[in-house]
Amino acid sequence: MITPLIFDTDPGVDDAQAIAIALAHPEIELLGMTTTYGNVDIDTATTNALLLAELADQRVPVAQGAAAPLVKLKHPAPAHIHGDNGLGNHPLPAPSHRAETISAPQFIVEQVNARPGEVTLVAVGPLGNLAAALQLDPGIVDRVKQVVVMGGSIREGGNVTPVAEANIFNDPHAAARVLTAGWPLTLVGLDATHRCVLGPAQMDKIASAQGKLGEVLAGSYAFYRAFYRTALDIDGCCPHDSCALAWLMRPELFTTVRGHLNVVTEGDAEGQTLFAPQERAFIDPRWARTPLVDVCMNADGEAVVDWIVETLTR
Amino acid sequence: MITPLIFDTDPGVDDAQAIAIALAHPEIELLGMTTTYGNVDIDTATTNALLLAELADQRVPVAQGAAAPLVKLKHPAPAHIHGDNGLGNHPLPAPSHRAETISAPQFIVEQVNARPGEVTLVAVGPLGNLAAALQLDPGIVDRVKQVVVMGGSIREGGNVTPVAEANIFNDPHAAARVLTAGWPLTLVGLDATHRCVLGPAQMDKIASAQGKLGEVLAGSYAFYRAFYRTALDIDGCCPHDSCALAWLMRPELFTTVRGHLNVVTEGDAEGQTLFAPQERAFIDPRWARTPLVDVCMNADGEAVVDWIVETLTR
Repeated sequence: MITPLIFDTDPGVDDAQAIAIALAHPEIELLGMTTTYGNVDIDTATTNALLLAELADQRVPVAQGAAAPLVKLKHPAPAHIHGDNGLGNHPLPAPSHRAETISAPQFIVEQVNARPGEVTLVAVGPLGNLAAALQLDPGIVDRVKQVVVMGGSIREGGNVTPVAEANIFNDPHAAARVLTAGWPLTLVGLDATHRCVLGPAQMDKIASAQGKLGEVLAGSYAFYRAFYRTALDIDGCCPHDSCALAWLMRPELFTTVRGHLNVVTEGDAEGQTLFAPQERAFIDPRWARTPLVDVCMNADGEAVVDWIVETLTR
Repeated sequence: MITPLIFDTDPGVDDAQAIAIALAHPEIELLGMTTTYGNVDIDTATTNALLLAELADQRVPVAQGAAAPLVKLKHPAPAHIHGDNGLGNHPLPAPSHRAETISAPQFIVEQVNARPGEVTLVAVGPLGNLAAALQLDPGIVDRVKQVVVMGGSIREGGNVTPVAEANIFNDPHAAARVLTAGWPLTLVGLDATHRCVLGPAQMDKIASAQGKLGEVLAGSYAFYRAFYRTALDIDGCCPHDSCALAWLMRPELFTTVRGHLNVVTEGDAEGQTLFAPQERAFIDPRWARTPLVDVCMNADGEAVVDWIVETLTR
């Protein structure tokens, strides 16, 4: 079965790997990429999305989107993690093609409405584009097939604050809108992605199997690995964004729990995803006021990494 | 070495067991108990504290304290967990003695100041009494030996909201004051106490070794067990409050991490304890603005339960 999808992304090293998967997987029909600021500034995100598809010899529409959060002020892009160019400062050619003339939210709305019940949205950056698409046409809630979001943390703790994961922290208001919109949604957060570590040997395998795209992946991995080694004492990296695609294609590798999500938009817990599992009663009805969604609480990390390597080396 | 301590409590089934430990342990000098609303209303808390000491044939000063939270409205006492009388609806005689004429905060201040550097405070309910003591005399921060608080949750999730533990949720403003006061403090929360399950056979052993006090413990355990079975599918109970004393006497049974605590006082995450380990850098300096404390992130549950049983059966 072929899954038509739009990949909403801020590439970013781990985004680049996920894009390679979306381009390579025989059961994914990549309708387009929509770009957002996040790991990099918006122009860099768009350039990288165009270039990565070209390096894989594919022509995929790229629509540019959010340059900043909905409400809060923008933080500087984390160049110490992804490099100034988002791909580990690996030298990059300019892309030959240009972005679509319509913006990301409109691209999402048009694609979803053109194929009601068929299109999957996979979002792996701050959620401004999906929030803006909901504002353009709230009716897409009923016409999208499903939404998979890489972001958040329930039990695992955060990566930019003690409780907040970067994508949600970057735009908590957009996240609140998107995660409680009432569409079929799965959150793949740090509880799952931190179970997965892609080691140096696996990075090498992928890089050498991916041709021109592989050279850029190799350069970006090298930079990302240095960050993981210094900051987190991990030899390798967590392939966060690829995990969203892994959940989509291989959900049996994840432990997924149904319940209610809330996003904290203000104060010290800003950007935290609060999750109340459906089966657990809490004292206050406010925890059950939001629509039900699915949240990944765990993953078979080794099997997920095997799936990534297999997808990118066949 | 003898540890002089004040036990601040809202008894409560698991409080009763912890009080039995404080009364029984040869290396604990119980200077007094201070009472707070929480598991029960304040009058019931005081009555139970007086009675539990008398049932153990000991005379211990009891000073009554907070009847309600500092700022937020009071929730009804959780009679479905601890019974209407706080001790599982086991029939209770009236105590023979009465509470001190001074209130809990003053009792704490006087005791701490009478023995500078010697007195340990162990608080296992909402933290209003300790907050009020800090208001009466902020100087106790430098004269207390140490403070051990049963409360909060870092990675484990909450027990009254998805993220908040009951003692902190009951009075988040008091908790914020107490947990960031800058005194030597250890938080023993659900990350540790949920590792410990006291089973039915162990409850029986304790009850039969504790004479008249044991009869009340047996009655209270029976009620508490029914709640754990129905609500949490656990055969037995988590001896939350006893864990605070276990940490004090046997810290080697716990994994304790140093870092900065913040308490969320408003919004959906109200009552959550946010913990930023000292060794981990986060992007915003606000996470390091509070004084360093120690937080239990794990416990050898079996060994802690063995210590409880041993203490109450020797």
